Amino acid sequence: MDEFVTLAHGAGGKQTSELIDRVFKRHFDNPDLTADDAAVLDVPAGRIAVSTDGFIVSPAFFPGGNVGKLSICGTVNDVACMGATPLYLTCSFVIEEGYPLERLDQIAAAMERTAAEAGVRIVAGDTKVAGKGQVDGVFITTTGIGLVREGAETSGADARPGDVVIVTGDVGRHGCAIMLARDDFGIDADVTSDCAPLAQAIGAALDAAPHIHTIRDATRGGVGTVLYEIAHQSGAGVWLDATSVPVAPEVAGVCGMLGLEPLYLACEGRLVVIVPAEEADAALDAFRRSPHTEGATVIGRISDEAAGRVVMTTEIGTQTILPEPGNELLPRIC
Amino acid sequence: MDEFVTLAHGAGGKQTSELIDRVFKRHFDNPDLTADDAAVLDVPAGRIAVSTDGFIVSPAFFPGGNVGKLSICGTVNDVACMGATPLYLTCSFVIEEGYPLERLDQIAAAMERTAAEAGVRIVAGDTKVAGKGQVDGVFITTTGIGLVREGAETSGADARPGDVVIVTGDVGRHGCAIMLARDDFGIDADVTSDCAPLAQAIGAALDAAPHIHTIRDATRGGVGTVLYEIAHQSGAGVWLDATSVPVAPEVAGVCGMLGLEPLYLACEGRLVVIVPAEEADAALDAFRRSPHTEGATVIGRISDEAAGRVVMTTEIGTQTILPEPGNELLPRIC
Repeated sequence: MDEFVTLAHGAGGKQTSELIDRVFKRHFDNPDLTADDAAVLDVPAGRIAVSTDGFIVSPAFFPGGNVGKLSICGTVNDVACMGATPLYLTCSFVIEEGYPLERLDQIAAAMERTAAEAGVRIVAGDTKVAGKGQVDGVFITTTGIGLVREGAETSGADARPGDVVIVTGDVGRHGCAIMLARDDFGIDADVTSDCAPLAQAIGAALDAAPHIHTIRDATRGGVGTVLYEIAHQSGAGVWLDATSVPVAPEVAGVCGMLGLEPLYLACEGRLVVIVPAEEADAALDAFRRSPHTEGATVIGRISDEAAGRVVMTTEIGTQTILPEPGNELLPRIC
Repeated sequence: MDEFVTLAHGAGGKQTSELIDRVFKRHFDNPDLTADDAAVLDVPAGRIAVSTDGFIVSPAFFPGGNVGKLSICGTVNDVACMGATPLYLTCSFVIEEGYPLERLDQIAAAMERTAAEAGVRIVAGDTKVAGKGQVDGVFITTTGIGLVREGAETSGADARPGDVVIVTGDVGRHGCAIMLARDDFGIDADVTSDCAPLAQAIGAALDAAPHIHTIRDATRGGVGTVLYEIAHQSGAGVWLDATSVPVAPEVAGVCGMLGLEPLYLACEGRLVVIVPAEEADAALDAFRRSPHTEGATVIGRISDEAAGRVVMTTEIGTQTILPEPGNELLPRIC
């Protein structure tokens, strides 16, 4: 087999089978992944959660992960945010002609490891090869299916005045790591992406605090965008304590130099959680004992004041409206 | 709103919401499609079929359809081929910066119509915008979920000696239409793609002939590639009657000029069906009464001779091994 992906690898014939055997089957093999057109899976009666996401990060490899790890985390986390236990994933690749097979193998290996950690099986896939220049490297689209936990009802519309706002770790790492990996600014800082699968942590939190109202992973647009979505969906106001928002010193440093707001930088392993006050401690405790959410902390409250808006209260007691996100993201991370 | 897709439309903020409202929500709106991270769906206990596929056809608009229609048909058909009734679809878009919104709207409109015809709901989606030149126009990845019919067991491995091989219409239309739409050869012929949703026809055939062994849609690689997959999976031989393979005169004409074999040209609305001889007439009859499969006909038989191969018998009684598909497809259609 060639050491680079060729158009023949995407033609659906012999070379496609070879690519699947050599890379994808080797990493993804499991009894549910067959050579038929679709996977056939057993599901218990009930409600399933389904989510899809496309991943086109550039560069495809960055400190803390690569596009493969990201493509599993992003979708697993979206499914888990609905109060579901992720079970199955599909993945679809669009690969640029000439892409090194070794890199593709590293991406698939990261997907294998992350899927195992998240407890999901890859059950169906697709591979297309696009001509040189038709696509930038590798695009991956994953779709996740999970079983909604008995009694779990989470939605951005359910945030209620009096609820507590939790974030599960320091914000803005992923956006900052990608920006530095692009080396557009000549800044040298040691920032690792927060990219991580969070299904286990969410499960533990829902066990401890079954009435959590909202769970969202802050990806594109960061925590600030998620808070605005929740404000709009629920019609309530979000009151943030600016000094409580955790930001790693190295991320704060880079943001300071470039005039960026960490609340708008992408995360890939951080949750925004809205929980009734009486269950806040239980939720916090569960997150702090779980992998990837050890840094969980309260950053604010839901109020009936400033409905539909996000208000920042500062150290000296002033209040400002967090600007509503819009226009192009700085930096673009996907 | 701008008349072209901008990077801001993919940033996950206000402009993304506007694009979703203006294009996707308008066409895809249904009670299962919410603003949350994942759709929550009711499913009865049983087996579900899941399939995913990426669509990168160039040109995106062609006689008989566009990439939107294709992205629904391809996945719905894959799910239906497992003996399942397609219920839900997710779709993920990667759009090139500068893509005309009007074209995107036409693509979404085609998806709406095709999903309605196929009886599926679009329940989750994702939109990414890639920089100019990072992607060629629009890529769509769809994932389909269906409920497997009671008792349905279809697999390429189940073909048995004595079974009858049916194709549900004339072959090679889609590949031929795409090739002509590219205008690389300066050939002027009136060929329309066969792109169509086939779930209804498959349901009718399974009602009439519940022991159908294999149902495959012949897409990339055409009918020839599917027959080889079945030969490999089942370990049986496929014996084709060359004179019975239906080819439209205009497709045959183009293939004759260019030296192409219609059996290796892509279809997007044709099934290869392997059925026990005693149910062949019932299956044929059901297909002939169903939309998009009126041209169903017997093209061969499964045998224990020439195991793992596809043999063509010609008008004058000679036998040749159909060459195993491989290398780059001519023409490349995706």
